[in-house]
Amino acid sequence: MSQQWLVYLGGEIHSDWRDQVRIGCEEAGLAVEFVSPVTDHDASDRCGVAILGEEPSGFWTDHQGASVNAMRTRSFISRSDIVVIRFGEKYRQWNAAFDAGQAAAMGKPLIILHPEEHDHALKEVDAAANAVARTPDQVIKLLQYVVEGSLG
Amino acid sequence: MSQQWLVYLGGEIHSDWRDQVRIGCEEAGLAVEFVSPVTDHDASDRCGVAILGEEPSGFWTDHQGASVNAMRTRSFISRSDIVVIRFGEKYRQWNAAFDAGQAAAMGKPLIILHPEEHDHALKEVDAAANAVARTPDQVIKLLQYVVEGSLG
Amino acid sequence: MSQQWLVYLGGEIHSDWRDQVRIGCEEAGLAVEFVSPVTDHDASDRCGVAILGEEPSGFWTDHQGASVNAMRTRSFISRSDIVVIRFGEKYRQWNAAFDAGQAAAMGKPLIILHPEEHDHALKEVDAAANAVARTPDQVIKLLQYVVEGSLG
Amino acid sequence: MSQQWLVYLGGEIHSDWRDQVRIGCEEAGLAVEFVSPVTDHDASDRCGVAILGEEPSGFWTDHQGASVNAMRTRSFISRSDIVVIRFGEKYRQWNAAFDAGQAAAMGKPLIILHPEEHDHALKEVDAAANAVARTPDQVIKLLQYVVEGSLG
Amino acid sequence: MSQQWLVYLGGEIHSDWRDQVRIGCEEAGLAVEFVSPVTDHDASDRCGVAILGEEPSGFWTDHQGASVNAMRTRSFISRSDIVVIRFGEKYRQWNAAFDAGQAAAMGKPLIILHPEEHDHALKEVDAAANAVARTPDQVIKLLQYVVEGSLG
Amino acid sequence: MSQQWLVYLGGEIHSDWRDQVRIGCEEAGLAVEFVSPVTDHDASDRCGVAILGEEPSGFWTDHQGASVNAMRTRSFISRSDIVVIRFGEKYRQWNAAFDAGQAAAMGKPLIILHPEEHDHALKEVDAAANAVARTPDQVIKLLQYVVEGSLG
Amino acid sequence: MSQQWLVYLGGEIHSDWRDQVRIGCEEAGLAVEFVSPVTDHDASDRCGVAILGEEPSGFWTDHQGASVNAMRTRSFISRSDIVVIRFGEKYRQWNAAFDAGQAAAMGKPLIILHPEEHDHALKEVDAAANAVARTPDQVIKLLQYVVEGSLG
Amino acid sequence: MSQQWLVYLGGEIHSDWRDQVRIGCEEAGLAVEFVSPVTDHDASDRCGVAILGEEPSGFWTDHQGASVNAMRTRSFISRSDIVVIRFGEKYRQWNAAFDAGQAAAMGKPLIILHPEEHDHALKEVDAAANAVARTPDQVIKLLQYVVEGSLG
Repeated sequence: MSQQWLVYLGGEIHSDWRDQVRIGCEEAGLAVEFVSPVTDHDASDRCGVAILGEEPSGFWTDHQGASVNAMRTRSFISRSDIVVIRFGEKYRQWNAAFDAGQAAAMGKPLIILHPEEHDHALKEVDAAANAVARTPDQVIKLLQYVVEGSLG
Repeated sequence: MSQQWLVYLGGEIHSDWRDQVRIGCEEAGLAVEFVSPVTDHDASDRCGVAILGEEPSGFWTDHQGASVNAMRTRSFISRSDIVVIRFGEKYRQWNAAFDAGQAAAMGKPLIILHPEEHDHALKEVDAAANAVARTPDQVIKLLQYVVEGSLG
Repeated sequence: MSQQWLVYLGGEIHSDWRDQVRIGCEEAGLAVEFVSPVTDHDASDRCGVAILGEEPSGFWTDHQGASVNAMRTRSFISRSDIVVIRFGEKYRQWNAAFDAGQAAAMGKPLIILHPEEHDHALKEVDAAANAVARTPDQVIKLLQYVVEGSLG
Repeated sequence: MSQQWLVYLGGEIHSDWRDQVRIGCEEAGLAVEFVSPVTDHDASDRCGVAILGEEPSGFWTDHQGASVNAMRTRSFISRSDIVVIRFGEKYRQWNAAFDAGQAAAMGKPLIILHPEEHDHALKEVDAAANAVARTPDQVIKLLQYVVEGSLG
Repeated sequence: MSQQWLVYLGGEIHSDWRDQVRIGCEEAGLAVEFVSPVTDHDASDRCGVAILGEEPSGFWTDHQGASVNAMRTRSFISRSDIVVIRFGEKYRQWNAAFDAGQAAAMGKPLIILHPEEHDHALKEVDAAANAVARTPDQVIKLLQYVVEGSLG
Repeated sequence: MSQQWLVYLGGEIHSDWRDQVRIGCEEAGLAVEFVSPVTDHDASDRCGVAILGEEPSGFWTDHQGASVNAMRTRSFISRSDIVVIRFGEKYRQWNAAFDAGQAAAMGKPLIILHPEEHDHALKEVDAAANAVARTPDQVIKLLQYVVEGSLG
Repeated sequence: MSQQWLVYLGGEIHSDWRDQVRIGCEEAGLAVEFVSPVTDHDASDRCGVAILGEEPSGFWTDHQGASVNAMRTRSFISRSDIVVIRFGEKYRQWNAAFDAGQAAAMGKPLIILHPEEHDHALKEVDAAANAVARTPDQVIKLLQYVVEGSLG
Repeated sequence: MSQQWLVYLGGEIHSDWRDQVRIGCEEAGLAVEFVSPVTDHDASDRCGVAILGEEPSGFWTDHQGASVNAMRTRSFISRSDIVVIRFGEKYRQWNAAFDAGQAAAMGKPLIILHPEEHDHALKEVDAAANAVARTPDQVIKLLQYVVEGSLG
């Protein structure tokens, strides 16, 4: 039962939920590797113009950056066995929902992580998911169950 | 050049932008048919429990409704030749970004319609699009150009 | 909104649920066409050997028949926009679950119709479905909502 | 000829047939790795609510559990080179037929394992299979032949 | 039940089996349209050089012709709902087996038509088929059953 | 044999080769419909900024235009049964080769039309094609043969 | 340039061409692994009934064997990077053409190996190939060039 | 974050840009492996006839060579995670645009590398790309950002 799993951790980048999930799975000894979008907010915003040169408008600055980031996110989502997307308390996070939509259309198993206050606003995303978790710990337990087949 | 086009109009449901696009294309005599999610907000929220029976919690009420709506939206997005998604001034509209993500992963040509104030927040969605329009009139002109090959 | 829908009605063949769904949708004036497996039980069992010649064993008699039926069911499921599968009170109906599995893997929107007594046994099939209906009338209402976008 | 094979062992979970197949292939030194759904019946029923919290009804308890299990089964079926599904003497086993349907639609080579008494009821599933075996020993011999190209 | 079916009639071109199948289905009033490779043997051999200019060797004369024919056969096979391939008593007919291989890899329902003397040589092709018929009349009956669901 | 064919005419836009092919096929009464990129050179260059607003640089002016044109060309190439691409005597025509590459990767039957002087430079494109024609008349004859199965 | 290649060697099983290709590539130090159908003619014919039990007719004996063999050949063809098929001087070898058809429909690069006397009969198969070789030595050189990018 | 990336370096073969990219990524310690078409111009032109025998015309000499090269390029493009295509100052380089078209249709992330003078002529190719770079150093920085998620 030595199958290796690749899990994409997308969405909210302002809390340490990715570290919690990583550490928890490591402590449980799960055969899981994690990938994620670039979580350094500044780098993620500036990557396009920092590498390819400044743009005269904010629109094309954003376009350059988002296009460069898409090479990473799209590749990682397609390679992943499971996609986890977290929606936080703040911000619009349309890229999180956009990633979830891509994952759903590719037929990826999907775990959505968010507080209950967003239940109604996220109902279409949740309805496409295999599980709606509330805490990083639930995500760890879900991965443990899926990967090892045991409830810990 | 009698090819027929099917265009999905997704996203914001509180203004009359769909009617504007429809009427504009009709007046231009374009060979375009439009489909859209259910735009009656109440029906869209209640469809699951209204048909299948009440649920004990808001979460499952939402889940039922969103699952039923997905039969329509997913079918329409996959059949469409072009997908147009509008983001309005209000609400989180995660379902709009989710639809855009599905369309992008299916390789559908994508037009995103939104005011400039959302440029930064929508940069990942915009970067996957063929055009970012600001007004329904621009959407009409884009469809006219794509369908008829003329600038009107 | 003149899109035409093709709906596959699979599963149980001993009650008149298909007729109920057909008549209900017709009365509602829905733009739906229905297809189904061969519902004449004898013909369905005998089609292989009736056309291609008798076989020395029950196993190959069944194999011939099932292979011939598969040309019809597999074609219809792949063409369909929505797949409805009914599980009745009796029999094992593995072919119904097999059809549901094929439809799920093809990404078809899925409605499962069965009495509550089968809830636990059908949980994997139900979890892959957009809606679990209890009566043909609910199926009609679901189709009306998906096709016309109204709750009737 | 050092190719590695991944084989999914689905279906019946009440006898030790998986162990027999595993041990037999190990003794034969075959380059085969096995994966399977969670075979701990209680864990499989309770996994959803055990991790995500209790549900007010049996229906949603089942739905949670089956959705979580689907992350594992769907992933394993898509990765596998060969899918083996066993139908036992008891229970309805609709999930076994559902798994077989998914595997067939994904174009996976399929071995079905069941006693002769189910021949007629399983004819559609059998007709989609490359082989219908009666004993775990036949499954081992089939895998040995497919993997090593010898009749042992 | 007004679905239209497209059936590809490939393989042997020296007998009138296509006409028999066509006339039989017409008399039965089936909603079937037939397509086939070019059955004029000379035109099929000469089409490349006749249109594009003579070639210095037989090899490239054949290559030109076969490439032009492939535009027709590949298109028709991909569009078809059912593929029927006949192997006659004479010639090597590798193109017939090649067409069957393409159809099988595309997941098309397959009917193979040939006399019993070729059973052993065609076993791999037959094993991928839904039915092995011996006469054009059996093909007609198979199509009638699949299309209309009745044994006539 | 009433099948309808859709043919994409891509590449060079400075001569009247499209009209020649269209008229020739019309005179031959072929069941062929033609689609093409926008062949008005100015409109094709200006469509992006003409509809969406001027851009500060030539690069983004080009980007806007090419993205809008891609909605048309990509849709038409994917719908087409056969793709014809002409390379003329002048210009670099990288978009023609890009269209041919897309068509090849989608598995579309491909006819390339160009003078002999480009044979060496176009060898990779030609090697992916079913036929390399030198004149519009040869394209007409190829289409007639593929569609009607006769050499005229 | 350490990419590993998997090459399927299909078709004729009566000469030692596979060994020649294997040894030649080994001596050249190519990063190539080879797979093939079962080349023990008796085992290949008898595998079905030897494992699953005798059948009352030659037709079903053949069917069992061919279905079991298909698990191996279909898996290997889909995994392979390049497919080589040899047609020998004798026998009908429809399975070789069937394998070539499957490989072509899956978009696999294809090398066909056969003497000139079969040029006309194999023209459809050859036209779908990247190269038509006459000797095992040419196959080795083709693989060396494709894998290492050098002419040796 | 130990994911390995495969990057295809296509297009112009007369400068040492591939070496620059390779060395730069090596010095940065990136987990990237590179593949490319055969860059020995003579070998690439002569590979077909050198292995398979001389052809009577330049057209078929080119056809043989290009078909053999396609086995390598098509395989490498499909396996790659990212495709980089460089257009140089000279030559028509239709094969570069053809490779870019194939990569785009396969949904591969695309980096185009070319001097500004080609901006207008390459606008369709650029519009399909995630980034348009001007120097090999920018390509290295893009790969570093995508692979490691840092701006260096």
